[in-house]
Amino acid sequence: MDRSATDPVSGNAADAEKEDALDRNAGASGQGGKTFTADYTLRFGQCDPAGIAFFPRLIEMLNWVVEDWFAKALDADFRSIHIARDEGVPARSLSIDFIGPAELGDVLTYRLQVASLGRSSINLAIAAEREGGRPVLTATHTIVYCDLSGAAPKSMAIPDALRERMAVFLVPA
Amino acid sequence: MDRSATDPVSGNAADAEKEDALDRNAGASGQGGKTFTADYTLRFGQCDPAGIAFFPRLIEMLNWVVEDWFAKALDADFRSIHIARDEGVPARSLSIDFIGPAELGDVLTYRLQVASLGRSSINLAIAAEREGGRPVLTATHTIVYCDLSGAAPKSMAIPDALRERMAVFLVPA
Amino acid sequence: MDRSATDPVSGNAADAEKEDALDRNAGASGQGGKTFTADYTLRFGQCDPAGIAFFPRLIEMLNWVVEDWFAKALDADFRSIHIARDEGVPARSLSIDFIGPAELGDVLTYRLQVASLGRSSINLAIAAEREGGRPVLTATHTIVYCDLSGAAPKSMAIPDALRERMAVFLVPA
Amino acid sequence: MDRSATDPVSGNAADAEKEDALDRNAGASGQGGKTFTADYTLRFGQCDPAGIAFFPRLIEMLNWVVEDWFAKALDADFRSIHIARDEGVPARSLSIDFIGPAELGDVLTYRLQVASLGRSSINLAIAAEREGGRPVLTATHTIVYCDLSGAAPKSMAIPDALRERMAVFLVPA
Repeated sequence: MDRSATDPVSGNAADAEKEDALDRNAGASGQGGKTFTADYTLRFGQCDPAGIAFFPRLIEMLNWVVEDWFAKALDADFRSIHIARDEGVPARSLSIDFIGPAELGDVLTYRLQVASLGRSSINLAIAAEREGGRPVLTATHTIVYCDLSGAAPKSMAIPDALRERMAVFLVPA
Repeated sequence: MDRSATDPVSGNAADAEKEDALDRNAGASGQGGKTFTADYTLRFGQCDPAGIAFFPRLIEMLNWVVEDWFAKALDADFRSIHIARDEGVPARSLSIDFIGPAELGDVLTYRLQVASLGRSSINLAIAAEREGGRPVLTATHTIVYCDLSGAAPKSMAIPDALRERMAVFLVPA
Repeated sequence: MDRSATDPVSGNAADAEKEDALDRNAGASGQGGKTFTADYTLRFGQCDPAGIAFFPRLIEMLNWVVEDWFAKALDADFRSIHIARDEGVPARSLSIDFIGPAELGDVLTYRLQVASLGRSSINLAIAAEREGGRPVLTATHTIVYCDLSGAAPKSMAIPDALRERMAVFLVPA
Repeated sequence: MDRSATDPVSGNAADAEKEDALDRNAGASGQGGKTFTADYTLRFGQCDPAGIAFFPRLIEMLNWVVEDWFAKALDADFRSIHIARDEGVPARSLSIDFIGPAELGDVLTYRLQVASLGRSSINLAIAAEREGGRPVLTATHTIVYCDLSGAAPKSMAIPDALRERMAVFLVPA
């Protein structure tokens, strides 16, 4: 498989063997394509006077699903990354479409997949729907693995073990 | 007035007549291109354990600048729109790039312009920087003027007086 | 009837039998004294640059446990109360002691009991601890059952069925 | 200087000598009794589906007034304290009464005075009202000056220069 043909950021990785390892995770062995899901009830304090979700709270929830993905699926909770290692995953970009309203008490199901993995950047595809499959939002969200020990965040290569666990969630090519 | 002349696409369109219509909206003198700015200090509770802005709080701030624009520049504060009229401007989409970190205590200057005006949609171009002109984020953000009196928000034409005041902030073609 | 003798639950309920039933719930039959508990993980966005909980977020969490108590233990979720009935339980007072720090990733166990029930007021005793039983906070919190259909919240008698379910959580005398 | 003379209880105590010590702290001219005030507009995202303030946001605002007091009146903004010195003022307790509702768009005036100063604890009296002097809340709030460089916050003596500036806001005996 020619990664450069399908992965926009693959060119950053110097180490071909690691690339191969990724390919196996995501590809031939059929381990890619997994979806991480989490349910959150839309709380009173997350709704506005119109009785629907205040949209920045839906974006905070989107951050929760990333946090829960790290903790529950990647064996890398934010405490261990931030406090123990002084590393983190600041947001680089977010593009989000609000498709339908979310109302007080709705159980929102967030679904997360990895659209692509770069050397340090992680491109996520996230969607949320409420009961009955009614869509609430879709988003693409890029976070960047960073060393936080300096004055400003500095991108660094995603640790190998973490990358391998992320690759399980890659959207099939 | 022919509302189709201020259709969603007109702001970006090559169609000179529509552009003219928008110019007339902005006033006989052909004004437009005004920028609304607001300064917000990044507070302690808006920063994360890494000591920088927790990004959903920057998006909440982005909502503040829209709210302040309505109240201070458009003579249409959210109380009068929401409570008195049961109308509002839910978010349809947001695309945001985080360019540089914002740190505790930074004074963030948000700048807002109108990229285009549709019948009911308002496409905003928003950027924020900290002292010294260091960029923090740029965003495009679409909100939709809605009737909120029903079970779900329903788009409606932006009231004329409001549209005229918005047009003053249209990015020059 | 001497209100002072049987308050706080004496109520304003006209029906003496219900009063008796309430007394039995809370008293001789041993049905009172139940504790509602809920666990919440302290999230990244709820922590401050010191790496510990930003205290207003712990208070927001305290509101969560009240919300979850209504939904899960009282069969009266906020959507049905607020949206369907235009009633609610605004806060009248909160007194809270922060005993020990809560750190990023801590699972906080909130425990809620009813200290006393008035005609419309509900006095709650709430405590939170983290793993290992290390205390984080204790609080007394009074909310008031209100009619929200007017210009301002107006206290009203707690509906009987709701009062009975609340009484199960009364702290034993 | 005998620090015990400015022990936590002195501010409320009958002991005239301790009172005198505090008076001297406040300056030879016997100043004190100043009030710090700050205005905040209640935003859309701070209101709940009932159209009034979600109370944890009013408490977050209460934290804002403390933050602004440090920055604007005490010449000790949180960035310099937290980032440069690894010190801070975690909350020890808060007791708050919600007296009247606050509505979307209300300008809330927060007033802060110092009820008493201990070695490390700072006891604040805070009230907020909306236009027309209608009261929204009153609170007593104790924060503790802490060294944050260790695993957990550790109380330390309030730096002398800071204490002197705080004393200007002491409620007159």
